[in-house]
Amino acid sequence: MEDQIKLETNERLDDLMMDTGLRIIQSREVFSFSTDAVLLSNFASIPKKGKVIDLCTGNGVIPLLLTGRTKAHIDAVEIQPRLADMAKRSVKLNGLEQQINIVEADLRNFAANKAIYGTYDAVTVNPPYMSAEAGDSNENEHYAIARHEVHGTLQDIVEACSRLVRPAGKVAMVHRPSRFVEIIETMCKYKLEPKRVQFIHPNKNGEANMVLIEAMRDGRPELRLLPPIMVYDT
Amino acid sequence: MEDQIKLETNERLDDLMMDTGLRIIQSREVFSFSTDAVLLSNFASIPKKGKVIDLCTGNGVIPLLLTGRTKAHIDAVEIQPRLADMAKRSVKLNGLEQQINIVEADLRNFAANKAIYGTYDAVTVNPPYMSAEAGDSNENEHYAIARHEVHGTLQDIVEACSRLVRPAGKVAMVHRPSRFVEIIETMCKYKLEPKRVQFIHPNKNGEANMVLIEAMRDGRPELRLLPPIMVYDT
Repeated sequence: MEDQIKLETNERLDDLMMDTGLRIIQSREVFSFSTDAVLLSNFASIPKKGKVIDLCTGNGVIPLLLTGRTKAHIDAVEIQPRLADMAKRSVKLNGLEQQINIVEADLRNFAANKAIYGTYDAVTVNPPYMSAEAGDSNENEHYAIARHEVHGTLQDIVEACSRLVRPAGKVAMVHRPSRFVEIIETMCKYKLEPKRVQFIHPNKNGEANMVLIEAMRDGRPELRLLPPIMVYDT
Repeated sequence: MEDQIKLETNERLDDLMMDTGLRIIQSREVFSFSTDAVLLSNFASIPKKGKVIDLCTGNGVIPLLLTGRTKAHIDAVEIQPRLADMAKRSVKLNGLEQQINIVEADLRNFAANKAIYGTYDAVTVNPPYMSAEAGDSNENEHYAIARHEVHGTLQDIVEACSRLVRPAGKVAMVHRPSRFVEIIETMCKYKLEPKRVQFIHPNKNGEANMVLIEAMRDGRPELRLLPPIMVYDT
């Protein structure tokens, strides 16, 4: 299979360290996945079958990781043509074309298609963490789009999640704790009730630098706050 | 001093374990303070001087503990006459009448007095955790009022905090994580922006069973998520 997949300049093949031997195309110049994606893939409540969608999928790391947990069909949306292409080639490389469908699209347009409203059992999303204004002018365009809300705000993303998920379906997100209040408020506005939250701390004495949040569409208010994850055991 | 203070039937004197040798009147039949109050007293940002108020003060444990950290004047409001009386006697017992003023009042009426709007530098509150409906019919009246929202809902309490605190002043609350989303939403509604949050877990593998939240009146959105507290180090 691998021989049929062309690697572009400065791309490399990384092992996803799963029993199934999955590999992924990465590029330091364009996009490499981070711990956040791995944590989200483990955290999200994913049905054994049905339909799942990953938004802001980047090079497709989350759908690839999810195949280790589910037989569900996975759609995955990425706005950047270069990253969507990398994701498509990684899917093909692993022979997963039957399970994963990479869609190159703006999630705002994608989720405006009423025919797919409420059709997904679960949504995962690792959105840009920073506002468009907080941009670093030294970043290349690919990283700027992945990290900053250039092509859609938190509200756009939450609204898309809310439209796509079925009643009582789950939406799982990873984000920065500094924006936790805004996330909670926006989710509630769009009828996504936060049900499970887990904070990630660098160590036991450090403030959290990541948060995992799972909401249920039209859920009853009652939050569970899971044991913290300490990245380093010191 | 102690000899002048009359203990009622089934009341006892407990040591607050502070350098200053403070003691407090408790009663198993009426009210005993819990870890929650101690954690809140340590967590809250309290100015060295100025004006502080504690709502739902019970037997006055929080104002007593705060005297170890501040010279500020402390008002403390309790609706139950029996508990307000215990609190007043504990204040007198410790010779703190100049610093602590126990007020027997319904906080909804107390905070409706426009003359005191925005006059406090900091507010602390350890409210009832459960809705009025979730009542346990076996509880005695004193515990029922301390634990359930019989005399005011979360919204009433947050509204009172918002009225009493000055612009940029702090409101610190201890509550149950299950109601965290509702707390965040209610605080935001009343212009109290959550700025510091700390979750309390029974141990490193347990879900959080308490949460400390501090909001700033009219604050700018940006949350800090402090290192978790593990009550037992296992």
